[in-house]
Amino acid sequence: MFEAAEVGSRIDKEAYQREVPKVREDLLAFQRELAASGLAAAVHIGGGDELGKVSALNALLSWLDARGVESFALGPPTDEERARPRFWRYWRLLPPRGRMVILLGSWYTAPIVDRVYGRMDDVTFEREMRRIRDFERMLVQEHVPLVKFWLHLSKAKQKKRLAKVKRDPQSRWLIGEEAWTYFKKYDRFREVAESALRLTSTGVAPWHVVESTNDRYRNLTVATTLARALRDALEEAKSTAGRSSRRAALPKPRKFNVIRQLDLSQHLSDDEYERALTRHGAKLARLVRQLHEADRSLILAFEGPDAAGKGGTIRRLTQAMDARLYRVISVAAPTDEEAVHPYLWRFWRYVPAHGAVRIFDRSWYGRVLVERIEGFATREEWSRSYAEINEFEAQLAEAGAVLLKFWLAISAEEQLRRFTDRRTTPYKQYKLTEEDWRNRRKWDAYEAAACDMIERTSTDHAPWVLVEAEDKRWARVKTMKTVCKHLEKALAD
Amino acid sequence: MFEAAEVGSRIDKEAYQREVPKVREDLLAFQRELAASGLAAAVHIGGGDELGKVSALNALLSWLDARGVESFALGPPTDEERARPRFWRYWRLLPPRGRMVILLGSWYTAPIVDRVYGRMDDVTFEREMRRIRDFERMLVQEHVPLVKFWLHLSKAKQKKRLAKVKRDPQSRWLIGEEAWTYFKKYDRFREVAESALRLTSTGVAPWHVVESTNDRYRNLTVATTLARALRDALEEAKSTAGRSSRRAALPKPRKFNVIRQLDLSQHLSDDEYERALTRHGAKLARLVRQLHEADRSLILAFEGPDAAGKGGTIRRLTQAMDARLYRVISVAAPTDEEAVHPYLWRFWRYVPAHGAVRIFDRSWYGRVLVERIEGFATREEWSRSYAEINEFEAQLAEAGAVLLKFWLAISAEEQLRRFTDRRTTPYKQYKLTEEDWRNRRKWDAYEAAACDMIERTSTDHAPWVLVEAEDKRWARVKTMKTVCKHLEKALAD
Repeated sequence: MFEAAEVGSRIDKEAYQREVPKVREDLLAFQRELAASGLAAAVHIGGGDELGKVSALNALLSWLDARGVESFALGPPTDEERARPRFWRYWRLLPPRGRMVILLGSWYTAPIVDRVYGRMDDVTFEREMRRIRDFERMLVQEHVPLVKFWLHLSKAKQKKRLAKVKRDPQSRWLIGEEAWTYFKKYDRFREVAESALRLTSTGVAPWHVVESTNDRYRNLTVATTLARALRDALEEAKSTAGRSSRRAALPKPRKFNVIRQLDLSQHLSDDEYERALTRHGAKLARLVRQLHEADRSLILAFEGPDAAGKGGTIRRLTQAMDARLYRVISVAAPTDEEAVHPYLWRFWRYVPAHGAVRIFDRSWYGRVLVERIEGFATREEWSRSYAEINEFEAQLAEAGAVLLKFWLAISAEEQLRRFTDRRTTPYKQYKLTEEDWRNRRKWDAYEAAACDMIERTSTDHAPWVLVEAEDKRWARVKTMKTVCKHLEKALAD
Repeated sequence: MFEAAEVGSRIDKEAYQREVPKVREDLLAFQRELAASGLAAAVHIGGGDELGKVSALNALLSWLDARGVESFALGPPTDEERARPRFWRYWRLLPPRGRMVILLGSWYTAPIVDRVYGRMDDVTFEREMRRIRDFERMLVQEHVPLVKFWLHLSKAKQKKRLAKVKRDPQSRWLIGEEAWTYFKKYDRFREVAESALRLTSTGVAPWHVVESTNDRYRNLTVATTLARALRDALEEAKSTAGRSSRRAALPKPRKFNVIRQLDLSQHLSDDEYERALTRHGAKLARLVRQLHEADRSLILAFEGPDAAGKGGTIRRLTQAMDARLYRVISVAAPTDEEAVHPYLWRFWRYVPAHGAVRIFDRSWYGRVLVERIEGFATREEWSRSYAEINEFEAQLAEAGAVLLKFWLAISAEEQLRRFTDRRTTPYKQYKLTEEDWRNRRKWDAYEAAACDMIERTSTDHAPWVLVEAEDKRWARVKTMKTVCKHLEKALAD
């Protein structure tokens, strides 16, 4: 993989001066097109040649229009970042549509270094690379074409470069102490990097390995490759924009599905309800406190038909919790900053730090429910969303979160009763909107979508809990008991 | 101040159960009005009664509609927060229009604790309180009415409460270890808190001191006070909404103003330019590196007429810097998330951590330039903006930032030449917009606004530097030299 980048490629000064204005004009032209398009762009500059990376970045920034590009050089994660899944810091940096971001250092750095030093075994490393592959495919599909460069220096050149830097006070500080330590492991780094590149060079996000010895060759090659990649991405976007995806027919529920299996007649008397609420409330309070002390987080997502009682159930849960520990996130239409980022960005921004509780009143499952049924997402978008969501939840769970998803089920008749009640009770009227009636008309389609969702995203570490919610009291107590049970189990581990 | 909160106020169970539904209905009604209005609301719950604060917060959250409110209990700042001015973390938490935020702990905590323990002297404490007063006034003026509660317990009640908590494993963990340490200084805390409340009880953001002994009394009083304060704020907003502020006449520049005094004939030859750029570029590179090592930040803001050469000047600066250290922020129209927050929020979000460089291509001065001249801000808004900006910059400087603001000055004739050039050069056309021509027609008004701005916001720690930019080379070199000079001075301190 690196052999072609050890042949001594170089460009002389004259050719360079002739070519730079051309590539600059190209880059500026594509930046303007990008700004007008629905695309963003992410550029990753990696590799072992620290000085070369900085030089390439400086060159790109001096050629691009500063108003449309930002760069981030990633150092060690901050404590806010360390308290969350590893990818949280990358989601924070994703560019909005119309803009470009250049990253020095990225999601590759930690696994490669850890693998070299034996802190990560081969199987885990491969899993990480697979995760990266999925992440990058998601980026591209979500309108963030990714251009990846790996700047390579042969061992001899690397040695020479480091020796030169050591003598030069002007550039010495550009390189961290670890560069010399890493060099001692040059061969192993090369080996691991090669397998990383091999595992993650995909059709949607291929690697561009660039020989880094000669400044002019490296910087010009990076720039021309980037210009070409941007042009391809823009053309690809244009050609698919015409092909509007065929609207899928509304799904129909199976006759014996998981939701219809529920016994909605289950209920509690006032007395049973009050007693259970008191008992399990005290238990929940204790468990949440222990969770906090164990530095783990709890994430609950609530879905269900309108008027299924999500708000009331959430309120009973939070009444048992210390208000300093939880936040309720009510998910409504995305803000414009959210709308110009990949779909899950608006949920990643609310991922809690260790020790905190987040409750989502509606959630990332909107993609496969309302957006699917109402056609806000294309078939292509919502159908790949299941896998993306599973990956999102796997990362949350790995970071130590206890994660539960509740489907509150009511019958269509009960919903109508509650709508009518809302319409006639003055202080409840605000809760009922035209949208609620619209959704109700598609009851069956929503049920079918919910069944698909439950089937495809219920996992061990993030199970769906179906709650019979025809009787509000039953639903609240069942939810509370379930949260307690899972917290107990997690804390016993 | 606290005497009225030591009389043993309480509410019996019956009265409480009668009153709660009423206040709840009020709160929900105001929340709905809030959502539809242009207002946000911030609620601060402070005081020495930790358990009481949590109880009040829990009560409010269970009565309010969770979809419109968020709460934050502030612990020690994270490292991302510590690397920035103290108020950064509060700006992060400000609610957008239509929503409410409840804060447990706030901008008062640190100064009060520091004053009690003698880590802050009286003069500094008063200055901090004055800063808070300005901050709160700004919030209210920027459509975030603030309701402040101070929950008070007499010394005897506090002692009893702590003793009881100590015996009860269910509530013990709710209180940090420091509560017992603090209690030893109860009298001093009371004294300092009283002076804090006295200095910050203003017409726009008065304190509500609430006796905290009795749960029902405290929680109900907080809720009813909040409902009343929200109603007042909404009514105030409605009554002023009608009164549209009289549009100010366009300002006229004085004949001998600071901008006209500039000698725009100053210029450099190609040779002088290249030599100066090389020499000062190397110096700048070294100084920025030293700044980074000294863990200080550099903030540069660029303003000036369209086509004055801001972009080109910025590019020459950044070419001398390590791309890992700087970010260029191009300020354009606010996003919708920015538009629903107080004006400076969109700049606070880009405040750099220690050790970094931020360059603003246009800045927070838009408020007193384009927004003033084009009427996007009311007279009331832009005229108080000078003081708010001065305060913002003072906080940046106190946190160790080197802060410089550049006004790039060209003549109206030179601007016309550059516009014409842009119109006729294909790859420059995108730089010229209808807005540029619109602004040009108000040349004099912009000049007058710039003079006002320079006069009112040029300070020792954040000076305006006027740059003769008729000759681009002169402007670039002068800017670079000025940045070097100020960095040298700052690093020598």
